[in-house]
Amino acid sequence: MENFTFQCATKVIFGRQAEEQVGKEVKAYTDKVLLHFGGSSIKKSGLYDRVTARLREAGVSYIELGGVVPNPRVSLVREGIRLCREHNIRFILAVGGGSVIDSAKAIGIGVPYDGDVWDFYMKKAEIKEMLPVGVVLTIPAAGSEQSHNSVITNEDEQLKLGAGAQCMRPQFAIMNPELTFTLPAYQTASGCMDIMAHVMERYFTNTRGVDFTDRLCESTLKTIIKNLPIALENPEDYNARAEIMWAGSIAHNNLLGVGREQDWGNHAMEHELSAIYDVTHGAGLGVTFPAWMRYVYKHDVARFAQFAARVWDVETMYAPEEMALEGIRRYSEFIRACGLPTTLSELKIPGDRFEEMARKCTRDDTRVVGCFVRLYAKDVLNIYNMAK
Amino acid sequence: MENFTFQCATKVIFGRQAEEQVGKEVKAYTDKVLLHFGGSSIKKSGLYDRVTARLREAGVSYIELGGVVPNPRVSLVREGIRLCREHNIRFILAVGGGSVIDSAKAIGIGVPYDGDVWDFYMKKAEIKEMLPVGVVLTIPAAGSEQSHNSVITNEDEQLKLGAGAQCMRPQFAIMNPELTFTLPAYQTASGCMDIMAHVMERYFTNTRGVDFTDRLCESTLKTIIKNLPIALENPEDYNARAEIMWAGSIAHNNLLGVGREQDWGNHAMEHELSAIYDVTHGAGLGVTFPAWMRYVYKHDVARFAQFAARVWDVETMYAPEEMALEGIRRYSEFIRACGLPTTLSELKIPGDRFEEMARKCTRDDTRVVGCFVRLYAKDVLNIYNMAK
Repeated sequence: MENFTFQCATKVIFGRQAEEQVGKEVKAYTDKVLLHFGGSSIKKSGLYDRVTARLREAGVSYIELGGVVPNPRVSLVREGIRLCREHNIRFILAVGGGSVIDSAKAIGIGVPYDGDVWDFYMKKAEIKEMLPVGVVLTIPAAGSEQSHNSVITNEDEQLKLGAGAQCMRPQFAIMNPELTFTLPAYQTASGCMDIMAHVMERYFTNTRGVDFTDRLCESTLKTIIKNLPIALENPEDYNARAEIMWAGSIAHNNLLGVGREQDWGNHAMEHELSAIYDVTHGAGLGVTFPAWMRYVYKHDVARFAQFAARVWDVETMYAPEEMALEGIRRYSEFIRACGLPTTLSELKIPGDRFEEMARKCTRDDTRVVGCFVRLYAKDVLNIYNMAK
Repeated sequence: MENFTFQCATKVIFGRQAEEQVGKEVKAYTDKVLLHFGGSSIKKSGLYDRVTARLREAGVSYIELGGVVPNPRVSLVREGIRLCREHNIRFILAVGGGSVIDSAKAIGIGVPYDGDVWDFYMKKAEIKEMLPVGVVLTIPAAGSEQSHNSVITNEDEQLKLGAGAQCMRPQFAIMNPELTFTLPAYQTASGCMDIMAHVMERYFTNTRGVDFTDRLCESTLKTIIKNLPIALENPEDYNARAEIMWAGSIAHNNLLGVGREQDWGNHAMEHELSAIYDVTHGAGLGVTFPAWMRYVYKHDVARFAQFAARVWDVETMYAPEEMALEGIRRYSEFIRACGLPTTLSELKIPGDRFEEMARKCTRDDTRVVGCFVRLYAKDVLNIYNMAK
């Protein structure tokens, strides 16, 4: 096990009607917020009305900034920064899923910074502070409500990049599983693929002596495997929705990743897909991950056999390599059974830009992708081709 | 799943030589601390010298208060409160195990309170604030380095009581598994029984729809079951010591207990043992818990069968009741194999005060013990007799 530091101070308020507490939670910080959200769904669902009513009751005023899209754009972030400065706002309330939260975090680090916020994503500047961010979560997937990361797309440059710093964990995260009852099946399943990916990016490691976190990872994966089909079958099953929401949050606050080298190659490879084609992030990961596994499993057959046995209940009577392949097969089968694509062509991504994406992903082979197996542009290209 | 709020802001600094960071961490809060510890072991091991050297280098002065004993005493807590007030100290650095940390927390809540600190443990006063507490952990067991609890013994009244409040989580916890290499086998094993008990007090619940936390609990138990024998065989196995230390901390910060009714009957029953006989807390729990299980398992055979299957690898081909009993048997066998007593008589606790202990435990049947199965004085007495 490697040395580590871990601190996640986000206050989680979880359960039915949890959003009723938003006024009180915000009021502990401020009496003026930027209310940040996506499209009209929170208005249709009545969530917008409930949240704003609680804010008014608590004596909190708000300036609105809606319009966050999946793969959230730096242009809207810049607009949010401008609004906060103009209205002297020092708190951002994100009502939505990972895109809204990531956008809120970007605004939060941008406001106190003199330069352009995109500098942080280009690693041209170091993140030193973030305005406090509160979250009312509507889509369990990204885990951004507890994580210290943000991923933003620069639409002009077709770049999707992440930034992270300990100060980027939200102050509080309000999670009511009932808010996810209306999520469409595709979005529910894609979110779960993202959750599983967050776990597996940590799980496939070369670090030894991390059996406890291995088991926590496996528990999280099994929770999704059990509860996603239940939620797809009955979208209003509270417990299934609750398990997914809570597992998704734990999957990415880094509790599962402490003390170990982490991979993150699939996130890098998927970011190239969604930067160009605007695919749903989780659906993209569900396509790249099994292909990546087939490409790298020989690097550590025993770990893939453990994954097969403990996560996919593959009998240990088989030879390790058979077990490994059977585990990957069951994972792919699960993705398909949940109604998701398992190939790039099903995602309507043609092969003509694979080379360009592989070059961008590795910055023309100046950056190694992943670390369980270190991938170069040719490897990334091979994986895209295997996922075709 | 029940609604819950969870926040654990303790900063964990984990790994080899982690204690070297103590000066820097303390300095972020203060330049004067109460240095609180137990006996001479930290002086013999050199830890005292290293910690005080780092404090001096950071420009932090300290007043010492050693002498914390297992089942820490309220008399020493009062002495610590007096010292903090006299020297205007606003930070307590606990160097030791659960007893030292619990004593430090008691001092921390006592200093800003006008009355006697024991009021908090008698539930005569509400805990509103605690001086910040930092920890250098030497014994993984109590989990107090992240928990919001403290257990103190009033030696005059032969009462061992707990107090808890969200403000009672330490600010930071420095955990170097190497510091546990010299722990004797009995203490290592007893500590692991305490860790397992912290998990099981949460695991045996009547709440439904908590599969994720069930699995996290099972992962933690399996980690101890795997690594304790390794640490007993080779006390300097870093990874085994690290897994135990980290699992022990997660076992009691309540991540495993969110959204569910918790039991805590065994802690109540064990506290009566150690209040009178001063037995090692974990060893006491290793005696009461299997007896409690045999007494209550019929209340929810399916849960005990799950425990047997997932934690103790009992084949699911048996009937649920057989599985349940086999799981309990393997747990008892594990305790014995780790060199610990499994009966009260092995702990040198005679039967002559069982009735008195059962009455004290239930406050003369004015307090129900546990909630998985609600225990009255007669039940507690039966369990003590089963553990005889």
